[in-house]
Amino acid sequence: MPGPTTMFIGVIGVGGVGKAFLGQLEQLRLRLSKANPAIDLRLILLRRSNKQLFSESWQGVSIKDAVSELDKVNTPLLSLQETFDYLATAPGKVVLVDNTSDQTLANSYPVILRKGISIVTPNKKAFSGNFELWSDIFKAAANGTGSPSDGYVFHESSVGAGLPVISTLKELVETGDEVTKIEGVFSGTMSFLFNSFMPVGGGGGKFSAEVKKAKELGFTEPDPRDDLNGLDVARKLTILARLAGLKVQSPTSFPVESLIPKELESCNSGDEFLQKLPEFDNQMEELKASAAKEGKVVRFVGSIDVPSQAVKVGLEKFDASHPIAALKGSDNIINFYTQRYGSNPLIVQGAGAGGEVTAMGVTGDLLKVIRQLQ
Amino acid sequence: MPGPTTMFIGVIGVGGVGKAFLGQLEQLRLRLSKANPAIDLRLILLRRSNKQLFSESWQGVSIKDAVSELDKVNTPLLSLQETFDYLATAPGKVVLVDNTSDQTLANSYPVILRKGISIVTPNKKAFSGNFELWSDIFKAAANGTGSPSDGYVFHESSVGAGLPVISTLKELVETGDEVTKIEGVFSGTMSFLFNSFMPVGGGGGKFSAEVKKAKELGFTEPDPRDDLNGLDVARKLTILARLAGLKVQSPTSFPVESLIPKELESCNSGDEFLQKLPEFDNQMEELKASAAKEGKVVRFVGSIDVPSQAVKVGLEKFDASHPIAALKGSDNIINFYTQRYGSNPLIVQGAGAGGEVTAMGVTGDLLKVIRQLQ
Repeated sequence: MPGPTTMFIGVIGVGGVGKAFLGQLEQLRLRLSKANPAIDLRLILLRRSNKQLFSESWQGVSIKDAVSELDKVNTPLLSLQETFDYLATAPGKVVLVDNTSDQTLANSYPVILRKGISIVTPNKKAFSGNFELWSDIFKAAANGTGSPSDGYVFHESSVGAGLPVISTLKELVETGDEVTKIEGVFSGTMSFLFNSFMPVGGGGGKFSAEVKKAKELGFTEPDPRDDLNGLDVARKLTILARLAGLKVQSPTSFPVESLIPKELESCNSGDEFLQKLPEFDNQMEELKASAAKEGKVVRFVGSIDVPSQAVKVGLEKFDASHPIAALKGSDNIINFYTQRYGSNPLIVQGAGAGGEVTAMGVTGDLLKVIRQLQ
Repeated sequence: MPGPTTMFIGVIGVGGVGKAFLGQLEQLRLRLSKANPAIDLRLILLRRSNKQLFSESWQGVSIKDAVSELDKVNTPLLSLQETFDYLATAPGKVVLVDNTSDQTLANSYPVILRKGISIVTPNKKAFSGNFELWSDIFKAAANGTGSPSDGYVFHESSVGAGLPVISTLKELVETGDEVTKIEGVFSGTMSFLFNSFMPVGGGGGKFSAEVKKAKELGFTEPDPRDDLNGLDVARKLTILARLAGLKVQSPTSFPVESLIPKELESCNSGDEFLQKLPEFDNQMEELKASAAKEGKVVRFVGSIDVPSQAVKVGLEKFDASHPIAALKGSDNIINFYTQRYGSNPLIVQGAGAGGEVTAMGVTGDLLKVIRQLQ
């Protein structure tokens, strides 16, 4: 029989983050049960786009073997609704881990939470889409304005992966500080690109060559236009602005500078785009030269000015001595300017992408839920 | 009648942090009761070294007027033991907020926790004294290896004030990352001193003059030797090393470099010390020149090398481009090197001292306790 500290866990998504999470979940299960044998984490669902694995007996499946077991499944895929119904009938507390970037699944969060199922996720879609979905999610959450029988929802990894960005902002707000401005580099891809294109001290290759290099090194999406359009950063800014109290309607409701030249918007493929991009290197070289003349460097940043409710994403120039200019590799940096911290911001910096660090934020959120539900 | 979400709060210490905390507590009380009228925070004790204010009826005293009411009290001071007994008889959940740096009070934490009273505090003494007290505290805590009826204990502000240092380290460890090294500037005083004494790019005054300036600006303890002996940093390193899994016996069980010249250790007062310090400026000037020759700057840092269990505190040289060199004002910086984060550390930076930001860490911890106990 499941005890009061049995937690039933369903995982959707078995990509880079999903696989890293399963590794961390197995470690966590062992560590927690060693500290307290009554704590019992059971994986009762593993699902990807075309297959799903269940634990019909509620005993849980082996976390270590789950991915290979999933490969062997050949029963028909249940609908998402049927899957939520299955989870809701588990004889105890249930957490759904959404390791996808699926909008349809995100749209179901209010329904899932009202079934008493908690959600932890790096999926930005739920929190950065239209404002109504954001409201509906927190109206249905025990840690929003929902009822104590609703599920909890945490999404630390939706901004800056495992870096303590969302938890820090929440604590600033909840302890009564006044956040005046948030500014930073929120994309590992953009960080790598501009740290290479225009390093402090000079040097750096042509912009199109740096994009190509970033793609080859695996620092971009399969189609680099998905990074260069700025939407990923706009989604993160939307989330932070809402947490800071601004009613941002959507990630397209404020100015977002795309680095895709207008003339290349109609390219049929990422390859065609990469082939034609060198024709536009001159524009970026001019920008680089004008910044250099002022002793500055160019970076792709997002900023939220809270009093004026101004959110924007795009290229800006920074003094070479500015922490944003000094960033290394593909690191993110997030500066929180607040009343309490005064002129020097509270800064969080480090890797903001990658399977293990993203999964770490998800595992940390799972621990928060476990603590709340224990 | 107190409901299930009534929390009885006792506060000891009414200095800079204590007063800032009371301001934040009143804000929090209003905010929480607005969100959920059932949540009821009641201040039932305010105590300083020679006076204490009670709420005999358990209704709570006005938080806004508590400090001025405390001034008017002229009943005899109860013993600490009697005070804990009073708190333990409150008809509900109790949190003790220790805003002192009192070792005697810290020694009582295990007893307090076993009474089911939770503790939130910036007091370093409990966590950085001998290892036995550290063990006893977490053996008696619901969030240690104690029983669920014991109190919770949180101490975010004992390192880096309100910066998310302890919570970040705990999350790295609890989600299974391997922390290999922690390095940083952990003292606002030392940060200010060395950022002024040897700024990147040259300049800065004589060391003794910078110490004097720092004291005049209120950046040092009343007796600056209490900062310069390195013990404050050693205490913070002790706490972080223990959280990273090292059994550090005490803050004097590893090498700590004192900036008090041997010949001045016997000075009778801080004033005598400040008067004689200029005689030793040559030593610091030599150090400055030797660092400058290598293109480096000197900073007072602490570091923990986890695999070799080496903890140390003292002067080190850093390249001008290193984030530790680029620190501004009296900011702290903490670099966490871990297996997941690879060669670029996870960095937390910002003001690490001051009443409001220290109180913020305490208020954040109080919120954690409220969430656990709700």
